[in-house]
Amino acid sequence: MMLERIQEVNDIKKLDWEELDTLAMEIREFLVTKVSKTGGHLASNLGVVELTMAMHLAYNLPKDKIIWDVGHQAYTHKILTGRKEGFDTLRQFGGMSGFPKRKESHCDAFDTGHSSTSISAGLGYVEAREILGEDYQVVSVIGDGSLTGGMAFEALNNASHLKSNYVIILNDNNMSISENVGGLSRYLNGLRTADFYNSLKKGVTNTLNRIPGVGKTLVTNIRKTKNSIKQLFVPGMLFEDMGITYLGPVDGHDIKKLYRTMKEAQKMENAVLIHVLTKKGKGYAPAEQFPSKFHGVSPFDFESGEVLGTKKEAYTNVFSKALCALGEKESKLVAITAAMKDGTGLGKFQELYPERFFDVGIAEEHAVTFAAGLAAAGMKPVVAVYSAFLQRAYDQIVHDVCMQNLPVIFAIDRAGLVGNDGETHQGVYDVAFLNHIPNMTILAPKNSWELSAMLEFAIAHNGPVAIRYPRGAAYEGLSDFKAPITHGKSEVIYKETGIVLLATGHMMETAEKVREGLKEKGYPCSLINSRFVKPLDVETIEMFTQDHALFVTIEEATVFGGLGSNVTAYFAKSRSNVKVLVCGVPDTYVEHGNIDELRKVIGLTPETIIEQTEITWKNIQK
Amino acid sequence: MMLERIQEVNDIKKLDWEELDTLAMEIREFLVTKVSKTGGHLASNLGVVELTMAMHLAYNLPKDKIIWDVGHQAYTHKILTGRKEGFDTLRQFGGMSGFPKRKESHCDAFDTGHSSTSISAGLGYVEAREILGEDYQVVSVIGDGSLTGGMAFEALNNASHLKSNYVIILNDNNMSISENVGGLSRYLNGLRTADFYNSLKKGVTNTLNRIPGVGKTLVTNIRKTKNSIKQLFVPGMLFEDMGITYLGPVDGHDIKKLYRTMKEAQKMENAVLIHVLTKKGKGYAPAEQFPSKFHGVSPFDFESGEVLGTKKEAYTNVFSKALCALGEKESKLVAITAAMKDGTGLGKFQELYPERFFDVGIAEEHAVTFAAGLAAAGMKPVVAVYSAFLQRAYDQIVHDVCMQNLPVIFAIDRAGLVGNDGETHQGVYDVAFLNHIPNMTILAPKNSWELSAMLEFAIAHNGPVAIRYPRGAAYEGLSDFKAPITHGKSEVIYKETGIVLLATGHMMETAEKVREGLKEKGYPCSLINSRFVKPLDVETIEMFTQDHALFVTIEEATVFGGLGSNVTAYFAKSRSNVKVLVCGVPDTYVEHGNIDELRKVIGLTPETIIEQTEITWKNIQK
Repeated sequence: MMLERIQEVNDIKKLDWEELDTLAMEIREFLVTKVSKTGGHLASNLGVVELTMAMHLAYNLPKDKIIWDVGHQAYTHKILTGRKEGFDTLRQFGGMSGFPKRKESHCDAFDTGHSSTSISAGLGYVEAREILGEDYQVVSVIGDGSLTGGMAFEALNNASHLKSNYVIILNDNNMSISENVGGLSRYLNGLRTADFYNSLKKGVTNTLNRIPGVGKTLVTNIRKTKNSIKQLFVPGMLFEDMGITYLGPVDGHDIKKLYRTMKEAQKMENAVLIHVLTKKGKGYAPAEQFPSKFHGVSPFDFESGEVLGTKKEAYTNVFSKALCALGEKESKLVAITAAMKDGTGLGKFQELYPERFFDVGIAEEHAVTFAAGLAAAGMKPVVAVYSAFLQRAYDQIVHDVCMQNLPVIFAIDRAGLVGNDGETHQGVYDVAFLNHIPNMTILAPKNSWELSAMLEFAIAHNGPVAIRYPRGAAYEGLSDFKAPITHGKSEVIYKETGIVLLATGHMMETAEKVREGLKEKGYPCSLINSRFVKPLDVETIEMFTQDHALFVTIEEATVFGGLGSNVTAYFAKSRSNVKVLVCGVPDTYVEHGNIDELRKVIGLTPETIIEQTEITWKNIQK
Repeated sequence: MMLERIQEVNDIKKLDWEELDTLAMEIREFLVTKVSKTGGHLASNLGVVELTMAMHLAYNLPKDKIIWDVGHQAYTHKILTGRKEGFDTLRQFGGMSGFPKRKESHCDAFDTGHSSTSISAGLGYVEAREILGEDYQVVSVIGDGSLTGGMAFEALNNASHLKSNYVIILNDNNMSISENVGGLSRYLNGLRTADFYNSLKKGVTNTLNRIPGVGKTLVTNIRKTKNSIKQLFVPGMLFEDMGITYLGPVDGHDIKKLYRTMKEAQKMENAVLIHVLTKKGKGYAPAEQFPSKFHGVSPFDFESGEVLGTKKEAYTNVFSKALCALGEKESKLVAITAAMKDGTGLGKFQELYPERFFDVGIAEEHAVTFAAGLAAAGMKPVVAVYSAFLQRAYDQIVHDVCMQNLPVIFAIDRAGLVGNDGETHQGVYDVAFLNHIPNMTILAPKNSWELSAMLEFAIAHNGPVAIRYPRGAAYEGLSDFKAPITHGKSEVIYKETGIVLLATGHMMETAEKVREGLKEKGYPCSLINSRFVKPLDVETIEMFTQDHALFVTIEEATVFGGLGSNVTAYFAKSRSNVKVLVCGVPDTYVEHGNIDELRKVIGLTPETIIEQTEITWKNIQK
């Protein structure tokens, strides 16, 4: 076993070329075996085994700095830097992260999770190196999907002025999580498939014959010339035009060729992009065939590739069905995703209404302003997006959607804790970053019925609406409570006296348990479904002050800037003398782990809330 | 006077070519005269007079849709759409906005203010047109500076698939507000200056002679080939590679040529970019010579171009001096701006420490993650940025800076109301979007001394720090109060009993007046300088609960998610029975106008706060 000889960083350098090929095979088997048990990102990691090995041969870690874009493809890097054992606890609470983490290893130069950041961070390292007179190498690894993210372009634009070495490895597998889109993707595809030298020769000859005389009518002649010159296919000219040296394309599964290209690239005194062609899922048939399914995967059967465990219907599916149904009634409804068609449940909508579906690539900023444009032109756009990735479009929500009060609907999936992906993916900031934006309405459904009802409400509402719902199974409880959705109105579930629980979204399930627990302890307890985080239903709250002395707010969002904040702000100016206990996500980053464990850690379980409520209640009585 | 014949939209079409030239001259004189009295954006508007006229000839408004990127260059558009009279009240409260506003005119298709949004919004209109079967034309006008913003690239990437007409006009004046930077700028500069046909011919010949044999060693030969092929200069190939038809460059001051190119572009069934070369400040010598000074300008003398009125030292200058002084002591200090070198006061720092200064172009996302990379590599980066534009980098602050607890300093200028630029530029959200981010420290100085002291504190602090300060003159009052800055500690200015004012930053000046007013009315009143919005100084607050029943928080930031929220959140869980009056910016967009007027409108004047405090105090006593 070659893998046994890999105990720490740079051990790989002790192997010869043939042994390296064996190691690559062993790493693949190791990855599939381990991830089939723990779940994790698979297809992307299988695609970069040789690429990562070549980097570890060509660079000296931890002195040199590798910066992984997104970071879910760093498993081989973790294996090669002494973290093999970590795969038994991969993405589990207290175990190894599925992403690069500086606190986990000196070989991890920069923490990532979101897309398109690696060139910016890499440039930071390069400029620091020059100022401090250090001599390490810097290399960023970015996928072709991540390259469609605007900030990657901003960084490329800045890389052009470098007078010292910096290498960007473009890991081109012709897809992000979904298939890739747009002009850049088409361009890269051209680079992948062209027979460069032949097309080069032919192109130049054709072109020469068609060059127009100087001074003819401007527009039409330039057009003609260019159409013929397009055949003159110069590899990577788009990057060269930006001031970046282009090398490639290189076979991403040929370690020797990769290594040699990297060594060549290291010699240059400027920014160099190596275009590497890889295959997602490489070496494991089910993942090669369905790379999207094996992007991020739950534990599965090694032989068949079947995902284990039965699945209840997820909120994503409920949203998907509801949107498809509404799409039939409402011809102005359009759906937008930023490279997350399957994750957000828009696949079916695309099948039914292809002309009303838009996948804009990894481009959340554009997605939101594009939606604003559609809305200004009379459409009803729904932007389906993960909470953590909507962070990328904060300014667009403030400046393009809400300022003009445009009816854009944000279907915010993965809102609340997401679990195993950890800090970068927890959807706990959306309420706080939306709550203070004028004209915004924020909703969260208590169960599957309510998500559908809210979507219908949102489409009828003439202004921006955000509906947040969590990852995983949709709650089917409280199914008798179906009060119609009215703007700014909450739904009273149980009315007693003394303590009242105000919960929002999927925390209603927790709130039910809190209420039961409190009743068992002898405390009567009212329960309100705070459907609207914003605007706050102050009427109902005011009514409840008459016979309640303690208001307990429960939300899976930061304690700053959410439902709890809105309630305490209200009471600060009201004349009532009630107390408010705010239960939510505390002011700290929440690591990876399963969601139930994480809730224990942050104190968002029924048990903790019951305990705190009892303490607060007793204090009030003194 | 041709200008008299322009009373409403499309009146321009009644003039002949010669009359149009006269009109252009009259518009320039009109603009300089008016803006010299009201202040406003001048250089950019003088640059696009002919371009705007040509568009109004080539398009039919309001049916067709013109979308202005940033929007400060739409003055001629306003003149041509019946809003000449508005220039007497330009950017004044209740008067005409300096930006496109849908509520101001049917000829304004999309509201703007921030950069790089126009292609996204334009694509929204185009797709809506196709779905709804309408037949209007859509054209976006974007500057070469705005094109460096990542979301413009995201949108370009999506424009490539269009099968119907969409025109992007690239208004290339070779600068954003400062001079332009990066690979794209260099590329465009090549297009501006090349003699296309000659270089085309020469390039092809040279290239043919050097084409390598098929199959030679990969890397080196491709390099050689490309270096020679680069001479084969194909105009706009970068855009063509992205799938966008490129037309140009066109002289942006030749109405006839512009008009004909637009008519040509309208015929195409895809996305077309017209590259237009303009000169900022065109036709007014002082503005041609100093376009940056005449970008956004206060009232000035028509003849000399001298700005009127004496200026007190602005916070920007205080920051500038303090940073330069610290730069000498701290060799790891680096400064970053996103195309706002002069606006943020970094010019002097660049002169003194050119190797430690970075202008990344209009690219706030990249700026922040670049800073995170620098910090990870051991530097002390200061990102100097306007509050409204930092909104663009919210995710990067959450995901790249604060998650890794990196010592990046945000020097947030124009925090609070900015006045005449209106909704899009008011810096009132920064506290709310930073307050809920773990590891973040938020500061605001009461006067010029404190800004310098805070900067020194921030550089010594090992984690992210935001310092927010407003547009305009630095306060010189309270100069006897110089308690050293200690993390999380506020500064007690006056201690009495009953009412306590907690003010932050430049609202301390307001708070002093509130205190005087209340004392005159017979209410003793304490005053605390809440230097730290986050973390909140709960110790001092707790101490003050002993002899104060009313806490009044005063901040120029949204009432949701700021100092007031933090204080009410604290009292919700404390046992004290005090009341909190939160004074801040209400939950609505604040229009243009002078700052004092705007404060009256939103109730953030000493008078209003005194009145509300008295009412609240009397209520408590009941």
